[in-house]
Amino acid sequence: MAANYKALTEDTAMEYVKKNLDIFSEEAVLRCKEIGDGNLNLVFRVWEEISSKSIILKQALPYARIVGEAMPVTLDRARIESEALMLQGELCPALTPKVYRFDRDLYLTVMEDLSDHIILRKGLIEGKEYPNFAENIGEFMAYTLFFTSDLGMDQVRKKQLQKKFINPELCKITEDLVFSEPYFDAAGNKIEPHLLDRVEENWKNKDLIKEVAILKEGFMTKAQALIHGDLHTGSIFVTEKSTKVIDPEFAFYGPMGFDIGAIIGNFILNYAAQPAYMEKDQQKLQHYRSYLLESIRKIWQEFYKEFIELWEIHVKAPIESSNLYKEVYMRNLFEDTLGYAGCKMIRRIYGLAGVADIDNIKELVKRSRAQMLALDIGEMLILKRREIKDIDEVIEKIKSFD
Amino acid sequence: MAANYKALTEDTAMEYVKKNLDIFSEEAVLRCKEIGDGNLNLVFRVWEEISSKSIILKQALPYARIVGEAMPVTLDRARIESEALMLQGELCPALTPKVYRFDRDLYLTVMEDLSDHIILRKGLIEGKEYPNFAENIGEFMAYTLFFTSDLGMDQVRKKQLQKKFINPELCKITEDLVFSEPYFDAAGNKIEPHLLDRVEENWKNKDLIKEVAILKEGFMTKAQALIHGDLHTGSIFVTEKSTKVIDPEFAFYGPMGFDIGAIIGNFILNYAAQPAYMEKDQQKLQHYRSYLLESIRKIWQEFYKEFIELWEIHVKAPIESSNLYKEVYMRNLFEDTLGYAGCKMIRRIYGLAGVADIDNIKELVKRSRAQMLALDIGEMLILKRREIKDIDEVIEKIKSFD
Repeated sequence: MAANYKALTEDTAMEYVKKNLDIFSEEAVLRCKEIGDGNLNLVFRVWEEISSKSIILKQALPYARIVGEAMPVTLDRARIESEALMLQGELCPALTPKVYRFDRDLYLTVMEDLSDHIILRKGLIEGKEYPNFAENIGEFMAYTLFFTSDLGMDQVRKKQLQKKFINPELCKITEDLVFSEPYFDAAGNKIEPHLLDRVEENWKNKDLIKEVAILKEGFMTKAQALIHGDLHTGSIFVTEKSTKVIDPEFAFYGPMGFDIGAIIGNFILNYAAQPAYMEKDQQKLQHYRSYLLESIRKIWQEFYKEFIELWEIHVKAPIESSNLYKEVYMRNLFEDTLGYAGCKMIRRIYGLAGVADIDNIKELVKRSRAQMLALDIGEMLILKRREIKDIDEVIEKIKSFD
Repeated sequence: MAANYKALTEDTAMEYVKKNLDIFSEEAVLRCKEIGDGNLNLVFRVWEEISSKSIILKQALPYARIVGEAMPVTLDRARIESEALMLQGELCPALTPKVYRFDRDLYLTVMEDLSDHIILRKGLIEGKEYPNFAENIGEFMAYTLFFTSDLGMDQVRKKQLQKKFINPELCKITEDLVFSEPYFDAAGNKIEPHLLDRVEENWKNKDLIKEVAILKEGFMTKAQALIHGDLHTGSIFVTEKSTKVIDPEFAFYGPMGFDIGAIIGNFILNYAAQPAYMEKDQQKLQHYRSYLLESIRKIWQEFYKEFIELWEIHVKAPIESSNLYKEVYMRNLFEDTLGYAGCKMIRRIYGLAGVADIDNIKELVKRSRAQMLALDIGEMLILKRREIKDIDEVIEKIKSFD
């Protein structure tokens, strides 16, 4: 930890803003509130009533309280997060919160206040629709992944960037929680008693474990692009018109499909949960689930369209211009996407970290139904990803579980 | 470049040894000779007549004279080389030259003198046999690749090591010379007129270009293990009994198959060249070519055996212990090996950097025969690698070109 590191309070956060930033006028009367969940980071909102100007200060804490007690977590994640935000902001300014400053002593990022947005996961749980979201996130992924890959940037610069984003500690969390612990009787798993038989089936399923091992290897070795690394619906702020991707502290050079799969997998988790929330209005339920499935289709299609367009415009090298290669590349990306979507779903059902879409379902029978559906779809995506023809078939297969 | 960097001369090299190392006694009468080819590095042999003690000082030059004029090349390659040698020396002490010191100011590695060894390529061109070589190199690759991969080392430490070995400039050389320029009409290619038609076939071969693009992507993204990165027969010192792997300045985290393919591809290049050298003794030729093919078989088999053994002993994690996963992993490794062997062969026939096995053949007709054979085998390995069942079938296919 840097010698000058000190966790801020609401008072010292305001002092910091006055002393170091010229966002507010000198006479401004500031107010401040800590609005984080206090688990890994402090999040201060600082604002001025009169001008209604506001900013966010996000400071990394040197420990996590995820398992009840304090566990040390590298502060370097704050540097990675702010550098990733700045890079993503250059590539997709409309879809990334603005970063005003990163303070290397305090591991503090000063950035745009998005208090008029809500977390996408919350919106989806409430049954809200976001008509621009699929297009926005497709564009975000296409631009951030293409332009940090060997296709969209100089090979030498890419490796220098890769070096800056080597992120061993946070990758380890994913390697353990997503790709390891759900597949054996690990102490960290949180298995509800009614799930135990189904979970034990997974532990005995040799094909499933083989495929997860292959996907895990890809996560650990396939340095394709600077991925967000944690692109679930809790890492995205939305309004009806706006999309902002936040919290890229897990960013590193990894497989592109891990980002696309994260977002698709989390839409499917919500799809699995919705019958519990909307059971009293079957028409609404049907409509909303169609919306979710259409979103999944459009996320992939938008990503695909934009990515291929960038490829055609920007890649001049004779080898990488090969159309046959393009086909193989996009097919592999599709299969990775499905596999990672499946892994991201399964771990949320009985791994260490649950997900509100499912966990908020109070009634056991309904929760169990959602969990089983998520486990079945997740497993199907992992095992069948090489056979599934296209995104339409994914949608058909998801529907067929009902 | 470091401020204290200065290229050594024979005199200052001896001074350096006296001042900085206690390998020789204080009264020792030293002698020194520069024995490098002066292209990228200075290589000084320093010895004492009476004790017959000797050492090597290898110093990186800040430029290369590869294309006639001086081209700047990063000095950091000397750090990478010495750190790779030390790591390989820990894993395979018998197969790696000892490193006594690395001087960060002078980009100078002081190491064991191997003057009693010869370069394997030279030995093979002369038709010599090395009965221990296949076993030695199989062991070298199994140990160095396994213990620097996610299978054989802690995942967090692996990523820290990967960071130390990010090697953009030298990777770029390989990306250009092995995976790009041979597949279009690049200025750097050296195409003998009699090869032009055959080379143009490659440029038009869409399947070949697609497959090379896939292999190139693997080289640039598949961070499996700390690979040597340039493991051809010119990077290996041998005697009848001893094998020492040298010159790992291209080392980086890449696909294991690139190392195994490099050594196998270079054995096949020698196989393609031998009819020109041994044409007057067909029996000897047949015998020697059998030796070469047997070596190839044994290199793969020894590697495979040792690698799997290490896996079974050292991997305790439930996911990576999966036997089905092991099969997929080793199969992918086999296919990578064949693909990279093919790429390494083709580029040596008409790319920027030739290879003595072929280039030393004075007579055009004979040289052409060797070149065509190498191009055909190389292309076959790249295109058929997914269909070829095992190493025996590789040998059969190589033989079938005669």
